[in-house]
Amino acid sequence: MSAPDPSAGLRRAVVPEDEARVRRLVHATGFFSPEEEDVAAELVREALERGAQASGYRFLFLEEEDRLLAYACFGPIPATRSSFDLYWIATQPAEQGRGHGRRLLAASEAEIRALGGTRVYVETSSRAQYEPTRAFYERCGYAQVARLEDFYAPGDGKVVYCRVV
Amino acid sequence: MSAPDPSAGLRRAVVPEDEARVRRLVHATGFFSPEEEDVAAELVREALERGAQASGYRFLFLEEEDRLLAYACFGPIPATRSSFDLYWIATQPAEQGRGHGRRLLAASEAEIRALGGTRVYVETSSRAQYEPTRAFYERCGYAQVARLEDFYAPGDGKVVYCRVV
Repeated sequence: MSAPDPSAGLRRAVVPEDEARVRRLVHATGFFSPEEEDVAAELVREALERGAQASGYRFLFLEEEDRLLAYACFGPIPATRSSFDLYWIATQPAEQGRGHGRRLLAASEAEIRALGGTRVYVETSSRAQYEPTRAFYERCGYAQVARLEDFYAPGDGKVVYCRVV
Repeated sequence: MSAPDPSAGLRRAVVPEDEARVRRLVHATGFFSPEEEDVAAELVREALERGAQASGYRFLFLEEEDRLLAYACFGPIPATRSSFDLYWIATQPAEQGRGHGRRLLAASEAEIRALGGTRVYVETSSRAQYEPTRAFYERCGYAQVARLEDFYAPGDGKVVYCRVV
């Protein structure tokens, strides 16, 4: 018996169909505003049009028989030596609880290390709805490094997590 | 005797010559890397090509007889209700100590309020070289709301200031 292939189902290359698929996935989670859905789709388009290097947006798609289960988007933070932002990580609601997020996060960190990155930053909301999101990052070794009250809106702060990779 | 005109020498509209002028000013300060100079110039270009609304970048230029003394660049932070980023504020070295920065900051805050903004964020470095920059924001009513160690590089953290306007 062999160990499971850590790259099984993972795809790096962005294809035109990803723009609509990412938009559908992000919408399905129910966690994001229409404006945020636009941003998620726009990052896919930028990566398609300008490439990973010029756009600064890199993707990992987790698929099973051509269905998108989860995806992550990350890239180097301009004007930093080796800090990366994890811009998006999202899993289809029906696929949650199966470890896809954790696997995708570990794969993203491995990719970031391979690109010379040493620190991964991720931002999320302080609202109660995002408690599972914050708990997920904490389980995955992320430390809260900042909390900006009322950043997104009154009562909706920004929480910043970081992991040295 | 009348009060000094608070808008004297201030210009909002971006003109093509501003790209080179902003680059020269930012370079002259000696505070920014070539990469950061590129970013400063790129924001001017974006505002010229797409307009203030679509680009998200608004400018205030402080001039005296057609010479650029100082400038500020700010805009709404996407996905926030009413938070703004002050992306750039810089004064010609020979013109420092004359209150241009403070005047430009106050004018930027007034503009941000007029656009519906309620919070202004500004980021700077934790390095000793930036002590005068941090002291400037503190004198102008900004509070330190976050400090991310080693964000820009080892030993070079990011300090975030905020003012409710």
